[in-house]
Amino acid sequence: MVNCPPLKMTTMKFEVSATLAYEAVGSSSLLLTIQPFPSKEQTILSESFLTTPALTMQELFSPSNEKRVKVLEVAEAGTFTIHYTGKVANEIKEIPGEELADVFIPLMPASVLPYLNPSRYCQSDKLYKFAFNKFGAMEHAFDKVNAICDWIHRNIEYSAGFSTSQTSAFDTITEQVGVCRDFAHLGVALCRALTIPARYFSGYAYKLNPPDFHACFEAYLGGHWIIFDATRLVPLNGLVKVATGLDAAETAIASSFGNLNLQTIEVKITSLDADFQPISPTVSSHGYSYS
Amino acid sequence: MVNCPPLKMTTMKFEVSATLAYEAVGSSSLLLTIQPFPSKEQTILSESFLTTPALTMQELFSPSNEKRVKVLEVAEAGTFTIHYTGKVANEIKEIPGEELADVFIPLMPASVLPYLNPSRYCQSDKLYKFAFNKFGAMEHAFDKVNAICDWIHRNIEYSAGFSTSQTSAFDTITEQVGVCRDFAHLGVALCRALTIPARYFSGYAYKLNPPDFHACFEAYLGGHWIIFDATRLVPLNGLVKVATGLDAAETAIASSFGNLNLQTIEVKITSLDADFQPISPTVSSHGYSYS
Amino acid sequence: MVNCPPLKMTTMKFEVSATLAYEAVGSSSLLLTIQPFPSKEQTILSESFLTTPALTMQELFSPSNEKRVKVLEVAEAGTFTIHYTGKVANEIKEIPGEELADVFIPLMPASVLPYLNPSRYCQSDKLYKFAFNKFGAMEHAFDKVNAICDWIHRNIEYSAGFSTSQTSAFDTITEQVGVCRDFAHLGVALCRALTIPARYFSGYAYKLNPPDFHACFEAYLGGHWIIFDATRLVPLNGLVKVATGLDAAETAIASSFGNLNLQTIEVKITSLDADFQPISPTVSSHGYSYS
Amino acid sequence: MVNCPPLKMTTMKFEVSATLAYEAVGSSSLLLTIQPFPSKEQTILSESFLTTPALTMQELFSPSNEKRVKVLEVAEAGTFTIHYTGKVANEIKEIPGEELADVFIPLMPASVLPYLNPSRYCQSDKLYKFAFNKFGAMEHAFDKVNAICDWIHRNIEYSAGFSTSQTSAFDTITEQVGVCRDFAHLGVALCRALTIPARYFSGYAYKLNPPDFHACFEAYLGGHWIIFDATRLVPLNGLVKVATGLDAAETAIASSFGNLNLQTIEVKITSLDADFQPISPTVSSHGYSYS
Repeated sequence: MVNCPPLKMTTMKFEVSATLAYEAVGSSSLLLTIQPFPSKEQTILSESFLTTPALTMQELFSPSNEKRVKVLEVAEAGTFTIHYTGKVANEIKEIPGEELADVFIPLMPASVLPYLNPSRYCQSDKLYKFAFNKFGAMEHAFDKVNAICDWIHRNIEYSAGFSTSQTSAFDTITEQVGVCRDFAHLGVALCRALTIPARYFSGYAYKLNPPDFHACFEAYLGGHWIIFDATRLVPLNGLVKVATGLDAAETAIASSFGNLNLQTIEVKITSLDADFQPISPTVSSHGYSYS
Repeated sequence: MVNCPPLKMTTMKFEVSATLAYEAVGSSSLLLTIQPFPSKEQTILSESFLTTPALTMQELFSPSNEKRVKVLEVAEAGTFTIHYTGKVANEIKEIPGEELADVFIPLMPASVLPYLNPSRYCQSDKLYKFAFNKFGAMEHAFDKVNAICDWIHRNIEYSAGFSTSQTSAFDTITEQVGVCRDFAHLGVALCRALTIPARYFSGYAYKLNPPDFHACFEAYLGGHWIIFDATRLVPLNGLVKVATGLDAAETAIASSFGNLNLQTIEVKITSLDADFQPISPTVSSHGYSYS
Repeated sequence: MVNCPPLKMTTMKFEVSATLAYEAVGSSSLLLTIQPFPSKEQTILSESFLTTPALTMQELFSPSNEKRVKVLEVAEAGTFTIHYTGKVANEIKEIPGEELADVFIPLMPASVLPYLNPSRYCQSDKLYKFAFNKFGAMEHAFDKVNAICDWIHRNIEYSAGFSTSQTSAFDTITEQVGVCRDFAHLGVALCRALTIPARYFSGYAYKLNPPDFHACFEAYLGGHWIIFDATRLVPLNGLVKVATGLDAAETAIASSFGNLNLQTIEVKITSLDADFQPISPTVSSHGYSYS
Repeated sequence: MVNCPPLKMTTMKFEVSATLAYEAVGSSSLLLTIQPFPSKEQTILSESFLTTPALTMQELFSPSNEKRVKVLEVAEAGTFTIHYTGKVANEIKEIPGEELADVFIPLMPASVLPYLNPSRYCQSDKLYKFAFNKFGAMEHAFDKVNAICDWIHRNIEYSAGFSTSQTSAFDTITEQVGVCRDFAHLGVALCRALTIPARYFSGYAYKLNPPDFHACFEAYLGGHWIIFDATRLVPLNGLVKVATGLDAAETAIASSFGNLNLQTIEVKITSLDADFQPISPTVSSHGYSYS
C-alpha cells in the first residue's frame, strides 16, 4: 500500500505426502485438493500424483481460488489408492503488528470482498453483537484478531468426536468443543462479524500430532493475508498451503460423487531444513503471511 | 459441448432504474450491486449512476463473479440519494430440454464446481435425503429441476413478513413461506443436493408487481446455465441480470458498513420493445439461458 | 364424553425385562424409567428390581406424569448391574374412527392442554404451515393423524446412526432419516401444529426386532389418547407403557448425573397369551387406546 | 431440610390489572394466564375478570403447574375486551446464601425433577460445556446462579425488536440481545446445564417501565425456589406470580386458537403499601423465595 522497509522473510523446505485408500462400490467421481498450491511464495520443487490402478484424471486450476483440484473418474467398483508426494519451498513474511490495521472498505481489492460475507460454516451475520461486545472495544485490527484467537483457545476444547461435518461456527461458539476445522470456522466468522475479511486455510502442518491435514485461517490486515491458528498446535512457519477459501465447503480435501468409501488416509510432512526454527503460534507483536 | 443446430435466440431491450435514499448517521461505506452485468449476452447501451450530493466512489469488477460493485464513501452524517438508470439489450437462448442433461463431474469447468458446494443460505448438505427421496427417481436433470420448481411453487407460500435476512433454505423447506429470495435459495439448495450446480440470480424483472429487485436461480444443465423462477411471477425473458453468485450473501443489492439507514427504494423496469412476447415461467419442454 | 356403546376391549399379558450394566467412574446418581406404568388399564402382576451390588434407591411416582422413576445413588466408582423383570396385564380399547374427532379447546381437561405446547424435540411452532398445507384440508382429526403417520412412514427412512440425542422434529422433517424416537417426535410435533394434543409414549414392544425400548406417540382424539406408531414395526397391541410425556426429554429411559457409562443394555418382552392376535399398525378404520 | 432459625419474611400488597382488546375474525378460543396464582404465600384479596361483551368462559386450575387458565369461547367475529383487576397480598422469604446449596439428586421431590430437562426454549442439553467452562469451577450453587445472572446482565443487551416468539436460549447466548423472556430462558437453560433445576416465572412487576407483564426465573437451591432476574429492571419483592413452568411455551399469557388479533394490551401494578422498601435485584448474600 505504502512504501515499507523490506520485511523479514523466513524460507522453509518441506516434503509432504498423502496416501488415501478408497473402495468404490460403483462408478464414481472424486475431487481431491491435497496438492500444495503453487504461487510466488510457494514453489513446488517436485511432485508425483499416482493412483493404483491408474485412473482417468485431470487437474483444475481455478484462477480465483487458491487451490488445485484433481478430478478422478472411477469407472467401476473396486479398491484404489492415491499417493501424492511433493517437495516445496515456501516463505513466510514477518510484518510488524502496528502495520496490520483495518483496511478501509473502499480500498479493498475485489478479490478480498467475498471474504466479508457469511458462508455455510461461518455465519458471521449471526455473531455481530457477540463479536462487537467481546472484541469491539479494541482499537487495532491486529489486536482484535489476536484476542479472537486467544478467546477461542481458552474457551473451545480441542477434542475429536463431538463435531461433525455439519458443525458450524454458530454451534461451536456455544458447544465449545471441536477440531481444527471448527476452530478455524469460528475464527473466520468472528473476524467477518467485525468487518475484517477472513478465509479458511487448509494445508499440511509440520509437527502436528497425530499427523493429518490441518486447518487454520487468514485475516486480511494492513493489505496482507495474515495467518492465525487458534489451536496453537503447530509452529506458524510449519504450514504448507493447499487451499484457501470461504470455509471447509470450498476447500474440502476430498469430495466424492457416487458411492465411494474412504478406508484409510495417511499424511506426512518432514522438514528439509537442517535447523528448523519454529515460530510460535501464540500472540506476538508481529504477524506472519504466506501470501 | 457437441455440434448443435443453431439455438433459437430472443432479444430484448429494457430500461431500468433504481433510486435509493439513505440516511448516514456517521461516516460509512456502502457497496451497491444494482447495475446490470455487462457480458456477451447483455449489452449496456447507456447508463448513469448519480449520487446527490456527490460522493467518492469507485467500481469493482470481479473477474470470477458476475457482478459489478460500486463502492461509495460517505464521509459524514446526512442524507444522500443514489439514482441509477440504464438501458440494456440482452438475449435469451432457447434450448431443447432433452439436451439439458446432467454434466459429468469430471467434465465440469473449474468455474462451475463452486456451485456444487453448500453455502450460507443454501445448506444442500442437509437436504440430500429429502432431495433424493422427492426427485431422485427422475432420469433427466432438466426434469429434476422442473420438478423442484413445481414442488416449491406448490408448497411454499409467497408472502412477505415471515422470513428475515437470516432465513435459509433449511428453514424455508419446513416453514413453507417466503419471498423470491427464499424461493431462489431453496431451488439452489435442492439442485446442489442432487449434484446439479446451481447459483443465485439477482436482477430487474419486467412486470414484477409491486416493482422491486427480483431473485431467481440458474442450474447448470447440458453445459448451459438455465434460468428457473419458482415464484413464477414474471416472464422468463423479462429479466435483466445484475449478479450471480453462491447465494444472497454474495449478490447483496446493498451492503453497508458503518451506520447507514436505507429510507426508500424505488425500482423500475420498462420494455423498449414494441411487442414484448412473454416466455411463461411455467414448465416447458425447453430451457432458457441468459449466459 | 357422551353415552357410548361398550367399546371392544382386548386384553394382553406380557413378561418384560431389562438388564443394564454401568461403569461408575465416581459417585453418581442415576434416574431410571424402565418399569411399566401401573394404571387402571395396566396391572403389574409381579415385578422385581434388583441391583448388583445393592444400591441405595428410591422410587418417585409423579401424580401428573405417567411414569415411575427409580433414583439410584452410586456411592463410589465401580461397575454395577440393574435387572428389572415384571409381568403385566394390560388392555387396549378399540374405538370407531368416526368418534375420534377434534376436541373443542374449551372442553379439554387441564391435564391435556400442556400437550398442545411446543417442546424441546417437538417444535410445533415452526411447523404450522407445513402441517396445514399437508394435512389441513382433511375434515376429521383421526384422518389427519393417520395421514401424518402415513407421510412419516413414506418419507422418513428408519435407520440408526444418523440422528443423535439432539435431533429434533425440525431436523427430521428435512433430514428424513431417524429411529423410533425421531418418528415419534415428528408425529407429536405435526399433531400439535394442527392443534391436536399429542404426547410421546415410551415402552416395551412385542416383536420389535432387534429387541429394545420403543417409542411411539398418542394423540388426543374424541376424548381418548389414541396410540400411533409411524414406524409400523410392531403390532399396536404389543406395547407395554413405561411412560408418557412431552417428548424424550421427559420420558428418558435413563438419566445419569456424575460420571457413569452405560456398557450394555438388554431388553426382552414375551407374550404370555396362548394366541396373541396382532393388531396391525397400519391405518385402519378404528383407533386404539391404552388409557 | 434441616432445622433452621425462622426466616425473615417481607409481606407486600399490590393491585394489578390487565386490559386486552381483541378482534376475532371468526369463531375462536382463547386461553389466558393473566391472573395471580393463589397459594399459601400469595392470597387473592379480591379480583374481577370481565369481558365485553360477555363470553362463555371457564377456569382451569392445574394441580401440577402453578397457573390458572381462563378458557374463553369466542362464538363469532367481532371485537371484545378483557379486563382483569385484582388485589393480592404476598410474601417473600429471605434465606442466607450459604443455605442455598445444590440439592442432591436423590433427594429432589418428584415435582422438581422436570425442571432439570431441556425444553423448547431452554436447550440445556446444548449448553453443558459452556455452562461448565464459565461457571463450573464455583463451589456453591447459589454463587453459580448469581454468576449466571451477572454474566447475562453484562453480555446480553436488553432491547426489543430483535428476538421473536421463536427465539430460544441457544440463539440468545450468541446473538446477545433480547427482552425479559429471553433473559429468563437463558438463565433457566444455564442452570439446568449445571444440574440445577430452574423454571420460568411469569408475573406482574412493580416499577417495570414501561409497564408490561414480566418474566424472570426461579432456581431450586437448598430446597427453595429462589427468584432471579437477570434483567435487574425491578425490585425482587415487586413481583406478583402469575405462573411458573418449563418456559414461555408453558406459561404463555395468551394462546389463541382460530383467528384472533390482539389489538391493545395495558398492564398496571401499584403498591398498596405505605412504604414499599425495594429489595435490589443485584447480587446479594441472600436469596429470596416466593414459594
